[in-house]
Amino acid sequence: MSAKPGTRAERAQQERALRTRETLVRSAAEVFDEFGFAGASITKIMKRAGLTPGAMYFHFDSKEDLARAVMNSQPDTITPYVTSQGLQRIIDITLVWSRQLQIDPLLRAGVRLTNEQNSFGVEDATPYQEWAGIMQECLEVAREKGELADGVDAHMVADFVVAACTGMQMYSWIASGRKDLPERAVQMWKILLPGIATASGAAGAKVSTRRVATLVR
Amino acid sequence: MSAKPGTRAERAQQERALRTRETLVRSAAEVFDEFGFAGASITKIMKRAGLTPGAMYFHFDSKEDLARAVMNSQPDTITPYVTSQGLQRIIDITLVWSRQLQIDPLLRAGVRLTNEQNSFGVEDATPYQEWAGIMQECLEVAREKGELADGVDAHMVADFVVAACTGMQMYSWIASGRKDLPERAVQMWKILLPGIATASGAAGAKVSTRRVATLVR
Repeated sequence: MSAKPGTRAERAQQERALRTRETLVRSAAEVFDEFGFAGASITKIMKRAGLTPGAMYFHFDSKEDLARAVMNSQPDTITPYVTSQGLQRIIDITLVWSRQLQIDPLLRAGVRLTNEQNSFGVEDATPYQEWAGIMQECLEVAREKGELADGVDAHMVADFVVAACTGMQMYSWIASGRKDLPERAVQMWKILLPGIATASGAAGAKVSTRRVATLVR
Repeated sequence: MSAKPGTRAERAQQERALRTRETLVRSAAEVFDEFGFAGASITKIMKRAGLTPGAMYFHFDSKEDLARAVMNSQPDTITPYVTSQGLQRIIDITLVWSRQLQIDPLLRAGVRLTNEQNSFGVEDATPYQEWAGIMQECLEVAREKGELADGVDAHMVADFVVAACTGMQMYSWIASGRKDLPERAVQMWKILLPGIATASGAAGAKVSTRRVATLVR
C-alpha cells in the first residue's frame, strides 16, 4: 500500500483495503466475542468475513495481531455517540459504554480480549491506558469549567474510573449477563460525584439510565 | 464422615480429613495460579499435594468443584489480618487484599478463577457477592459510628468497591505485574472518602502504603 493517495485508481485500491481491514476486525470481534481467543480459529474468522486467509495476512501477521486490533478499537465504538464536554463527557462515555457492551460485539470482544490477554501470552496495557488518557482529558476540561473539586488529581481519577469500569463489567457479566451494567454505571457516578465534583458540577451532571437510552438509540 | 465428633478416634479422623482438604485446596490454588484452569490437570494438582486422585474424589467431585472451593476461600486469606472496625475495616480489607495478591497463591488463584470462570463454564457470582456482603457489614458499622456521610447507600458502595477492586487488580496485573496494586488501593480511598465519609470519618481513616506493611508482615 502506498503511503499517500495518488491517482484515482490508487485511492480506490486504498479504500478497498481499508474496508477489507474493517470487515476483518469486525468479523474477528464477532468470533472472539462468541468463542474467546482460544476458540476463535482463523478458519472461523475468515468464513465469517467471507475472505481468504491471504486477505488476512496482508493486514495482520497473526491471530494475536488481529486480537490487538480488536482490543484497540474500543473507543471507536463509544466516542461517535458522545458530543458533551468536561464532566458530562466522562459520564456519557461510561453510560454509552455500559449500553454498547450489551449490544456491540466489537466492544464486547475488545473488553473480553483485554481481560483475558494473559491467557494467550499478550500483556498489553494500551487499551486501559488509552481509555485513561481519554478520561483524563475530559476531567481536565471539567477543571477548566469549574466542575472539579479542589485538589482532585485528574490522572488518578481517570485511572480509577477505567479500573472500576473493568471490574463492573466482569461482576455484571457474571451476576446478570450484563443486564444491570447501565444501572451500575449510574451508581458509580452517584458514589463518585459528591467527592470529585464541585457542588455546581455535581448538580449540573445528568446521570440516569434514561440518559443511556437517549445517547444510544 | 460422621456429622459430629464422637470418640477420640473419630475426632482424629475428622481432623485428618480437614487437613487433607486444606492441603488439596492450597495445592490446587498453586497450580491454578501458575497454569490457569485449563492448564491445571488433576495429575499436576495431586503431584503438588502429594496425594492420590482417590483423596481428591473423597472431597471434591471434579476440577470445577475444586476451583469453586479455591474461589470461595478468598476471605480466609484476608480477614485474619484485620482487627479494625467500621470504615477502617473496609479500608484495611482492601489494603491487606492488595498485598496478599502479591504474595499468597490461594488468593491469587481465587481471583484469577473468579475472573476466568466463564472460560470453564462456571457462572458463579458468589465470590463477588460474599465480598460485597462483608464490606456492607463494615459500612453499616461505620454508619453506627457516625463515619458515613448522610444518604450513602451501604449496599451500593459495597458492591461498587468489590467491582473497583476486581478491575484494579486486572489493570495492575497487566500494567505492573501487580506491583502498583497497594498504591492503587490507597488512591481508591483518596477518591472515595471525600464523598462517602463524614469529615471526622475521613480525617480518622488511616490510608497509606505504609499501613499495608504494618497489617501484613
